Amino acid sequence: MRDLSENHRWLSINTATVRKAHGQDVPLAAIFDACARKGIRAVSPWRDQVAAMGLKQAALAIQSLGLELSGYCRGGLYPAVDAAGLQAHIDDNKRAVDEACTLGAPCLVIMAGGLPGALVGGKAQHPQSKDMPRARAQAAEGMAATLAYAKSCGLPLAIEPLHPMFAADRCNINTLEQALDLCDQLDPAHSGAIGIAVDCYHVWWDPKLEQQIARIGPKRLLAFHVCDWMVPTTDMLNDRGMMGDGVIEIPSIREMVEAQGFAGYCEAEIFSTAWWNRSTQEILDACIARVKTAV
Amino acid sequence: MRDLSENHRWLSINTATVRKAHGQDVPLAAIFDACARKGIRAVSPWRDQVAAMGLKQAALAIQSLGLELSGYCRGGLYPAVDAAGLQAHIDDNKRAVDEACTLGAPCLVIMAGGLPGALVGGKAQHPQSKDMPRARAQAAEGMAATLAYAKSCGLPLAIEPLHPMFAADRCNINTLEQALDLCDQLDPAHSGAIGIAVDCYHVWWDPKLEQQIARIGPKRLLAFHVCDWMVPTTDMLNDRGMMGDGVIEIPSIREMVEAQGFAGYCEAEIFSTAWWNRSTQEILDACIARVKTAV
Repeated sequence: MRDLSENHRWLSINTATVRKAHGQDVPLAAIFDACARKGIRAVSPWRDQVAAMGLKQAALAIQSLGLELSGYCRGGLYPAVDAAGLQAHIDDNKRAVDEACTLGAPCLVIMAGGLPGALVGGKAQHPQSKDMPRARAQAAEGMAATLAYAKSCGLPLAIEPLHPMFAADRCNINTLEQALDLCDQLDPAHSGAIGIAVDCYHVWWDPKLEQQIARIGPKRLLAFHVCDWMVPTTDMLNDRGMMGDGVIEIPSIREMVEAQGFAGYCEAEIFSTAWWNRSTQEILDACIARVKTAV
Repeated sequence: MRDLSENHRWLSINTATVRKAHGQDVPLAAIFDACARKGIRAVSPWRDQVAAMGLKQAALAIQSLGLELSGYCRGGLYPAVDAAGLQAHIDDNKRAVDEACTLGAPCLVIMAGGLPGALVGGKAQHPQSKDMPRARAQAAEGMAATLAYAKSCGLPLAIEPLHPMFAADRCNINTLEQALDLCDQLDPAHSGAIGIAVDCYHVWWDPKLEQQIARIGPKRLLAFHVCDWMVPTTDMLNDRGMMGDGVIEIPSIREMVEAQGFAGYCEAEIFSTAWWNRSTQEILDACIARVKTAV
């Protein structure tokens, strides 16, 4: 297991972590600059932030600041009420693949989607269908189509199993076991064209955590996300904790993923209204401190 | 699969569902009376409500009103920072077993507990330990001790796997598979002395739902709880939906449990600040209507 206590060489900042400061949106260009000034080596940007900045400008800024990417957030959201809807989502995922390639991302993170119509403009609402087996089949079909395209571009897809509390609205792939079964189905040769983003927040509770991480193997371990689970959690989406403030034994999970050969970035992805009310400096300083002591 | 559309013969009311009316606590005696007046045949009371009414008075009221019980809520909450704490929790579970026998309950529902010290007076707080494997081992040890006592009283224990969002504070048994593995460990003979309470709210999201329900078998299927998952869910604890208002395909889950031989009560267990602001009559009428159309 790597010693991370000396510096923040292996910290990556998911740009959602510093999406806001003092409650106000922060432009992606300012986020990139702030990270670079702090000696942070990698980021993982979101599509909406990249679109607002402009894809080419974002790619240029990343290059000129010498930043690496630990991922690109995100593809997925496949389920739809009909075939045309699913195809539209697949087409959108191909655009996300293209963007990830332009930005030089090592993988596109895939959040499968929940039930059709349950997430509109980022807001959860009552879905158009309750048919979960069908929604899961659509997610698999959408991923297969995206994978065919991503392979032609040489870009790996990273399935991120999300916590079961998001099954209805955001992601119907909810355990590592389920995600790995899907990898086996879509890529029986274990080529590494499709793998897993392990986010501690989503998987820490799983009684099969150690068993399933041991099943991933180095080729499929594409990303490692960190934050913490607060007790109590007052908001399902935006009450994530800074590493060390909650109940997840993050170092023990890092030990498991590194035992599989993972040697990449620990990506801090913290959706938190409380932290978004502070300054960008405070958030980044806390991430830098905590990656050394609590990751 | 039974036809429930004609009457509410197989509806049971978990007394937490009508714990409050117009935002105020309702005495258990009034809950029993209201259920009996509506022709509801069964209830599942909570320990704190029974304690407030008096155990003997509660038992007498249940008998005189001709009510059956579909369960008694609840035992468990085993994890502790030390052996003395665990023993105190085991002792308390023995008292819960005695109460369940006095009331004539068919089973004691077991909510394992989360991390030690994470639930105090019903409120979640930062725990005293983050060691989840140890907390799970304590839950298994506590259940084994409770089972030995419950067997001597002839009372089955019903392990209720709770949704993974409660892993830290309420219950570290979070999937049917995990609960059934524990049943196999504690009762390899499948005697029925320990089994499962299937609550749709906690298990609906599970990709292994059908597979694991098929594993339960009739002897271990001790209780079936219904309510619905709302999208969005605004509160993790008290925003459960009335059957039919959310996204769970409850009839498909009932079909699975009845295929295992289950022929007992469908117990409505709805923790909902919104419903608790209505009258007891309204809540019971809704349960009666929905058990016919949405269960």
